[in-house]
Amino acid sequence: MSEDVFDPIYKESFPFWEKIPDADREYICQNSHHIIYPKGKNIHNGSECSGVIIVRSGSLRLYIMSDEGKDITLYRLHAGDLCMLSASCVLDAITFEVFVDAEQDSQCCVISGPAFAAVSERNQDIRIFALEAAVSRFSDVMWVMQQILFMSMDKRLAIFLSDESARTGLDTIALTQGQIARYMGSAREVVSRMLKYFASEGIVEVSRGGVTILDKKRLRTLTL
Amino acid sequence: MSEDVFDPIYKESFPFWEKIPDADREYICQNSHHIIYPKGKNIHNGSECSGVIIVRSGSLRLYIMSDEGKDITLYRLHAGDLCMLSASCVLDAITFEVFVDAEQDSQCCVISGPAFAAVSERNQDIRIFALEAAVSRFSDVMWVMQQILFMSMDKRLAIFLSDESARTGLDTIALTQGQIARYMGSAREVVSRMLKYFASEGIVEVSRGGVTILDKKRLRTLTL
Repeated sequence: MSEDVFDPIYKESFPFWEKIPDADREYICQNSHHIIYPKGKNIHNGSECSGVIIVRSGSLRLYIMSDEGKDITLYRLHAGDLCMLSASCVLDAITFEVFVDAEQDSQCCVISGPAFAAVSERNQDIRIFALEAAVSRFSDVMWVMQQILFMSMDKRLAIFLSDESARTGLDTIALTQGQIARYMGSAREVVSRMLKYFASEGIVEVSRGGVTILDKKRLRTLTL
Repeated sequence: MSEDVFDPIYKESFPFWEKIPDADREYICQNSHHIIYPKGKNIHNGSECSGVIIVRSGSLRLYIMSDEGKDITLYRLHAGDLCMLSASCVLDAITFEVFVDAEQDSQCCVISGPAFAAVSERNQDIRIFALEAAVSRFSDVMWVMQQILFMSMDKRLAIFLSDESARTGLDTIALTQGQIARYMGSAREVVSRMLKYFASEGIVEVSRGGVTILDKKRLRTLTL
């Protein structure tokens, strides 16, 4: 694919794009790749420097993982979103390990980490952009942390079901209880128990196909 | 106190200090205060912009808090450390609320948030410094999060006791079980049960004065 393809994409994604020298723009484009990740593919693994990822379509899931393989979703990336934490060589101050998987077939632009780091070293605007991208994710992660550590399970589950339904536009959340638990950073048993409670209250119906919301109003009340 | 007092302190704390114009250095010093916070004092409360805090002596505790008042320690600040998260008006991307208390009588330099923000807007080096300070704390917080969410309680408690003992140079950790639980983001009952287990194994001795480490080798093994 020609390098010219990347220029309009980066112009849209990077507020610094027009401020840096032509040679640096070209260098970034030369070190870019268009990659289609199939659903389920692991894209970034811990501390390696996989590069700066811009999602064009599909969705990616960013998570942390324990030694025992337990994982907790920090956030998801959709079309237009940018992943800076997968380029640990760009940001020295990032010393923790995250993992990124494709949740759907996902088209992405990937800029080589070392190339992006080299250009950012001679352009303070890029450095500020990269740091701001990381700091704004810090806020997302704090939100998740507060949810997990502080919020009661009924509220968390209600919020998850409402958000999923709003995102897909469907009343049925086509996920297994194990998947819901994983996304919420909780145990399957806990989710299962709470769904049973929601079902007994006529708020949802649980079937093989997933969880169907029956009483949106009640569910919304639980999210408050 | 004369403004001249701040200059040598900032020269030491801020790598950008010599790179910014004299007028900006003066402006920061004019908007600085020397404050002694008594032990137990709440210094920063949620989303307000309390300013950039440099700890000169003593120690501060930075934590998050639930609506119900449950709190979790993210990290502590000691002499020479800098707190940027208490200056939310400097970093737009920080949208979460943290709290800061003095854990001991603490001497601090506090720079007004709006003043620091104004100067950082015209000096990219300051902007980068502030963002890097926040991003490096992001890594600290992720470490705490992984500890809380993933690590088994015996390991966490062993690490806490070892770290405290190393920090103070004493075998006795002069904290109540409630305080230990609060620092670890855990419940008092859980800490109490685990300490009883450690005591029954001859690893520690629990008394009114705190927790005394009897078997450092065993304790260290538990931290691995």
